[in-house]
Amino acid sequence: MSNTSVQRLEALRKRMHETGTDLVAIGPSSHMMYVAGLDPHGDERPVMLLVSREHAGFLMPALNVDSSRRKTDLPFFAWRDDDGPDAALADLLKASALPESPSVVIDETMRADFALLLLDALPGAKRRFTDDTVGFLRARKDNAEYGRLKASALLNDKATLAGFDALKSGITELEVAAAIRDVYKAAGAVPVFTSVCFGGNGAFPHHHTGETRLKNGDAVLIDTGGRLDGYPSDMTRVGFFGAPSAEFEKVHEVVNRAVEAALAAARPGVAAKAVDKAARDVITEAGYGEFFPHRTGHGLGIDIHEPPYLTATSETVLDEGMVFSIEPGIYLPGKFGLRLEEIVILRADGPEILSEMPRATQIRN
Amino acid sequence: MSNTSVQRLEALRKRMHETGTDLVAIGPSSHMMYVAGLDPHGDERPVMLLVSREHAGFLMPALNVDSSRRKTDLPFFAWRDDDGPDAALADLLKASALPESPSVVIDETMRADFALLLLDALPGAKRRFTDDTVGFLRARKDNAEYGRLKASALLNDKATLAGFDALKSGITELEVAAAIRDVYKAAGAVPVFTSVCFGGNGAFPHHHTGETRLKNGDAVLIDTGGRLDGYPSDMTRVGFFGAPSAEFEKVHEVVNRAVEAALAAARPGVAAKAVDKAARDVITEAGYGEFFPHRTGHGLGIDIHEPPYLTATSETVLDEGMVFSIEPGIYLPGKFGLRLEEIVILRADGPEILSEMPRATQIRN
Repeated sequence: MSNTSVQRLEALRKRMHETGTDLVAIGPSSHMMYVAGLDPHGDERPVMLLVSREHAGFLMPALNVDSSRRKTDLPFFAWRDDDGPDAALADLLKASALPESPSVVIDETMRADFALLLLDALPGAKRRFTDDTVGFLRARKDNAEYGRLKASALLNDKATLAGFDALKSGITELEVAAAIRDVYKAAGAVPVFTSVCFGGNGAFPHHHTGETRLKNGDAVLIDTGGRLDGYPSDMTRVGFFGAPSAEFEKVHEVVNRAVEAALAAARPGVAAKAVDKAARDVITEAGYGEFFPHRTGHGLGIDIHEPPYLTATSETVLDEGMVFSIEPGIYLPGKFGLRLEEIVILRADGPEILSEMPRATQIRN
Repeated sequence: MSNTSVQRLEALRKRMHETGTDLVAIGPSSHMMYVAGLDPHGDERPVMLLVSREHAGFLMPALNVDSSRRKTDLPFFAWRDDDGPDAALADLLKASALPESPSVVIDETMRADFALLLLDALPGAKRRFTDDTVGFLRARKDNAEYGRLKASALLNDKATLAGFDALKSGITELEVAAAIRDVYKAAGAVPVFTSVCFGGNGAFPHHHTGETRLKNGDAVLIDTGGRLDGYPSDMTRVGFFGAPSAEFEKVHEVVNRAVEAALAAARPGVAAKAVDKAARDVITEAGYGEFFPHRTGHGLGIDIHEPPYLTATSETVLDEGMVFSIEPGIYLPGKFGLRLEEIVILRADGPEILSEMPRATQIRN
């Protein structure tokens, strides 16, 4: 087991103690990658890492034992296809030495059948999800994670700029996306998602990049991210093909001000909802409240979306080392969508933006 | 909504009636793609299709409503990030008009937090997974699905052959995998997985294709699949670089005989476990029983792994139109792994193999 995994398992046990947790159950997911450095073959065969106060072990399909053994020295409770997982799980739970009515944390991303297999084996368990255990730890990045996220963000600046530089009359959204992805690939990174929206397409927050062709007078929204050395990037910038309309310029000013308000509000000790409110108030006061239908931000680490989430109701208290997006947007049906997104790491004195690309409109002709 | 979706929803309701099911809950998954033709943005925001006897509707994050609306005209019960999904789910359940203690089917692939959100809202529900409802329907392919699976299998023959043709001294597993993937891409298909194992690497059923270089006397195992027009392929063939050893030839003969025994056993009305037993008996009688640690096969459709599963204990009764793999294998640590895999569709008189590539050892020098 790597030093990182040893340290993270130790940190998880400390956190379990602080939160009165008897068992943490993790499926094949980024949670497992984070805690144990293991990314096992994921299919319908139940795989779980169970961490209790004194024990840690894997429920593992027999045919994955050898390949997984190279990555960890935690014990495997193996099961064969013709036996099914019940007996191996019972052995693992016995080794976990849980109290009556244990307090159990379930990896919320686990398949429903994995989770219900475990919960059916633990009648009387009090369950919750990983927010205050694995999620708590993952939200606070160490220096090694910061370095990787920073490098990934700087590459994303280049990729995004390549997208705007590719704009020309008649080009399709998909062609622009390809130009962006080429930048990731040339740097040895993996494209994760690339959303390119021309004109009214940008008014759907999750528009699928397609065959729409660029024409003069179109707003352009690019939201893209790649994965470099295991860590993703995620940034949104907007441009205009031709001279920006007065309405576009006005909305850009409002959204940019919302970003700045959120940056000013984000401090260690502040609730996530206060950052959402800071951005939302700017947009609401400008009269666009109904056109900002989503939360202000999400955490980013091994996953593109992870805690902390910056919503209108989140009581999560922001802490030093947290990495998250600030991405207010205004979507005007039939016209354009305008979102500006930064990824920041929260320092003692406020957020540090990871990318270097300005938020100004990228104007091309 | 497409005609296909109308027909499948009707077939699902008929099946719900036959199985006494009051509600089927489907997450963003191939189940949803199959039933409703919808593949919504999948993240941590709960999305569910709930089908009851008289109603069908989606729990849907507000920001995905517009893009999803283009694909279906079923009603959306939308929720915004700052409200959370509880109220929208309550409305959807009210519209579903369920009886007391309803019999509920949960998509087993759904995230644990989606499933528990629903189950917590339905205290007293009797739950099971999709095997005898959506799974039942998906296991029986119609002609359109057969045509796509057949085309995908024939492309896979070409891809696999390109892999064996790429063999030369010193080439790496990854380089052979790249040659295989190029064939999918040139045909407009998407590589799904490509496992290339040289020598002893083949003895790990889920070996990760890597930098191992080919040398004379190595067995070669290629297990690969691509997705063409929405439908995948999956086939395993073996080769030898140089003159096959006597042991390899003997094991090949045993595994091929196991495939043939399974093909002979698979008939409509037969239990899946009988097909597994037919293959396993051949291998056990040849003295290799302990080296065949996995099930004999899995269904294949929109997913590479789906029902029916051919295990030693599966009571699933095979039926006309089912598509599944037959893939016995023998894994000799330190020496080689030898698996032969066919995808078949079950006809009234027995299995029809979808691919045309023979199972003979591909010998190269």
